[in-house]
Amino acid sequence: MINAIGRDIPEYIDGFGPVRPFRGAFAAVPDPAAYAPPLKATKPGHRKLVSTLEDLFKHLRIESGMTLSFHHHLRNGDAVPNLVLDTAAKLGLRDLSISLTGVFAVHAPLIEHIKNGVVTSLRSSGLYGPLAAAVSGGLLAKPVLLHSHGGRPRALKSGELKVDIAFIAAPAADSSGNISGLVGPAACGSLGYAFSDADRAKAVVAVTDNLVDYPLIPASITQNKVDYVVRVDSIGDPKGIVSGTTRITKDPVGLNIAETAARVIEASGLLKDGFSFQTGAGGASLATAHYVSRMMEKNKIAGSFALGGVTGYLVDMLEKGLFKALYDVQSFDLESVQSLGRNQNHIEVSADLYANPFNAGSLVNNLDVVILGATEIDTDFNVNVITGSDGVIMGASGGHPDTAAGAKMTVIVTNLLRSRQSIVVDRVITATTPGETVDVLVTEYGLAVNPARPDLKERFADAGLNVRDIHELKRLARNMAGRPAKIEPGGRIVALVEYRDGTIIDVVRAESR
Amino acid sequence: MINAIGRDIPEYIDGFGPVRPFRGAFAAVPDPAAYAPPLKATKPGHRKLVSTLEDLFKHLRIESGMTLSFHHHLRNGDAVPNLVLDTAAKLGLRDLSISLTGVFAVHAPLIEHIKNGVVTSLRSSGLYGPLAAAVSGGLLAKPVLLHSHGGRPRALKSGELKVDIAFIAAPAADSSGNISGLVGPAACGSLGYAFSDADRAKAVVAVTDNLVDYPLIPASITQNKVDYVVRVDSIGDPKGIVSGTTRITKDPVGLNIAETAARVIEASGLLKDGFSFQTGAGGASLATAHYVSRMMEKNKIAGSFALGGVTGYLVDMLEKGLFKALYDVQSFDLESVQSLGRNQNHIEVSADLYANPFNAGSLVNNLDVVILGATEIDTDFNVNVITGSDGVIMGASGGHPDTAAGAKMTVIVTNLLRSRQSIVVDRVITATTPGETVDVLVTEYGLAVNPARPDLKERFADAGLNVRDIHELKRLARNMAGRPAKIEPGGRIVALVEYRDGTIIDVVRAESR
Repeated sequence: MINAIGRDIPEYIDGFGPVRPFRGAFAAVPDPAAYAPPLKATKPGHRKLVSTLEDLFKHLRIESGMTLSFHHHLRNGDAVPNLVLDTAAKLGLRDLSISLTGVFAVHAPLIEHIKNGVVTSLRSSGLYGPLAAAVSGGLLAKPVLLHSHGGRPRALKSGELKVDIAFIAAPAADSSGNISGLVGPAACGSLGYAFSDADRAKAVVAVTDNLVDYPLIPASITQNKVDYVVRVDSIGDPKGIVSGTTRITKDPVGLNIAETAARVIEASGLLKDGFSFQTGAGGASLATAHYVSRMMEKNKIAGSFALGGVTGYLVDMLEKGLFKALYDVQSFDLESVQSLGRNQNHIEVSADLYANPFNAGSLVNNLDVVILGATEIDTDFNVNVITGSDGVIMGASGGHPDTAAGAKMTVIVTNLLRSRQSIVVDRVITATTPGETVDVLVTEYGLAVNPARPDLKERFADAGLNVRDIHELKRLARNMAGRPAKIEPGGRIVALVEYRDGTIIDVVRAESR
Repeated sequence: MINAIGRDIPEYIDGFGPVRPFRGAFAAVPDPAAYAPPLKATKPGHRKLVSTLEDLFKHLRIESGMTLSFHHHLRNGDAVPNLVLDTAAKLGLRDLSISLTGVFAVHAPLIEHIKNGVVTSLRSSGLYGPLAAAVSGGLLAKPVLLHSHGGRPRALKSGELKVDIAFIAAPAADSSGNISGLVGPAACGSLGYAFSDADRAKAVVAVTDNLVDYPLIPASITQNKVDYVVRVDSIGDPKGIVSGTTRITKDPVGLNIAETAARVIEASGLLKDGFSFQTGAGGASLATAHYVSRMMEKNKIAGSFALGGVTGYLVDMLEKGLFKALYDVQSFDLESVQSLGRNQNHIEVSADLYANPFNAGSLVNNLDVVILGATEIDTDFNVNVITGSDGVIMGASGGHPDTAAGAKMTVIVTNLLRSRQSIVVDRVITATTPGETVDVLVTEYGLAVNPARPDLKERFADAGLNVRDIHELKRLARNMAGRPAKIEPGGRIVALVEYRDGTIIDVVRAESR
């Protein structure tokens, strides 16, 4: 069947089941049934502290076929999924389903566990590193489900994703299960992606290398939600968890794009008191924040909030008083971890509050502007951030479709050419974010506005910005780079791109061999 | 059928249904089924602000037969249930079920709404004021369900209590539905009893007289859980909401009981580093806190946490460094409201985290000692805090059974004689808290220890405390006061006393006429 952006999606996919096709960014209506995990009685004196993962597996009767979940706040320093799955393998478990909110190079040992049948199913917001290539090559029999950060709490609440055991990597925990990401050798700041697991998993385990005196305060996830606490030597390598202070790009092309993006924001009419803003951690996005910051200072604009994966740049803007609040679902660097611990206006938020489309109103709905990247964008403004133009998985959906849907103006910043290829194409090889939620494309050769937003086009033209038709940008790129080789992987489906509402917006296929 | 404390409970009660009898404080096993409210899609640009309650009733299609919930943080200043039910009456609605976490004199207009058939069912943790007497006299055809503070979130999570619309009295709210109790003309501090409603009601409405700029920070209940915001002129009268600084009793008998209770705590061996403590807001309880505070200062004891309905006395103990954390489910006075806003170690907690027996471990399970009151206590140590000795409702279960079940030592402080009647009786007329969870009774004529705790009895005797048998205290009181008139109301059942686990521990009957 053909979905609302013209993608041909099977009605039934082996290893997944019947498919609900994407019908438009705001078309889906939630199924009224919702899921809550069984209640449990906990008596006074119940001891939660377990000394090894093996003991935990016995206590909780963790069995083959179960679904285990993990968050990715420790990013490329994360040791917890590897420790847990090594234990599962050692105990002879098989056929586990894994929900890991983000997959990094450090998770490469998953490959062996998949080959050996310990793990047979995987969900994530995206894949980086060796596992990405392996999945693209057909490692898993069942297709991987790629979800957005807002789509995951939706799936947990609806029961589409039922987690048996949530393993929460805990930079600090006490013996009763209160958890914080603020302190400890593996401090990572916000634990926002783990909140919904703590609410909806059948059992919740804190895995920690930093057991502190009771009560741990402040706690992000509280003892009423945590069944067991396991001590391990190390939950992660700080070097892979947080970077030092993030830096804006020094590349003149990137700076030019960023400056244009900032002028687009100014010209949009949205940059006024109450302004709200999200930007990613990429160099061009940070540079945009830099220029926006200068404009806000110059024009004495009192913003309402900034949101996102948080970097030191947004912390600086908060501390300058440019925003009243900084909402943090993921802390990217040391500056943001420290700020979250010390500044009451820097607030940890759950992925549900951040971006779930099926609650009473997530923060993305209050965004004026979001600045996002792309690996490809097509002339319908559909964006790909999951695969390269070769169809091989190398990125993450993350909050991209969520913020694009929520914000009043979604701006894609990207070089028009990358690796001598045009980023603007007729048809993205993998659609992550539907064009109806994307308003502006900014490149070093000018910007293009979605025809659905003539109001913006007029404003930008009036401001003297170099507004071009997106087809014109595509032709310009082709004149420089030549027509790309037509790649259309025709092999079996290795991944499903789930839109935030639970419909399938696209599939990723292996190369046909 | 006869339940575990010897109460004869019908197997089926009209207006309620089949009854699960109380089988012991830790005997109940949760039903595996749990309830979650239907998900809803909220699009960007959705407006939550509604200008009148009448408009809200139309927007939300509030209908006859629905269940509406309210919290009691505004106590005897609360205007919200009256405003909402006046609107319902005006619109001709009938047969509403009301869950109001505590009923005060200010809620007397409910009597008319019940008489007129607008309201036909009521749940609360207890009743004070005119409605209490009216219910005892048989005002409602269906028996009122009296629950504990921990039992209510259990019922919301299990689906035994399904709320259609939760009305949250909001001392401050923004237009997206973020709510705080910290500021505004009706500031009440913690909103802990409303948290589970925000999680489990089908729709959630903030009712506010203090609409603030977006985003409201800090927010206790966040916008992802709140569907509508209604402005009213006033949600409550500050005079009835918080008292000034609470004072300890000046009555020498009360001070004597309090001093003995403090010596009991010292002799128990629990008063050491890591000590945790809850006490009520009554004069004798506060006086006990005063003596405990002095002992902790003198002996340089570093406690872990204090818990409860919070008063300035506990705030003082926190500020002196006697406790690391102060957990606040309800702020009783101005001092605690202010402290909650300014002290990061003073932490707002939900009723679920506070006291729900059916989660992964509530805070009451970590209590060393709780000091509680009683209207009656019997020789099996069963306690009544709901009715007078005449069987007329005049109090609340509140956190009494929850903390008694959780704490390592539960101490009841009470005068042996009150209004020339013995507080110690053969059999409490209404059982709120089972004797198996009550360890010590302290009176002005000595103390009695539950025979299940010979360890404590020995410690108290060794410490030179005046330990007596509870039967001896009863005889002593009878010698002074005479045998009480035998009252055994034999009329129909007007209220059910639900134990925290959902079983029925007792019933309240009307006087037979």
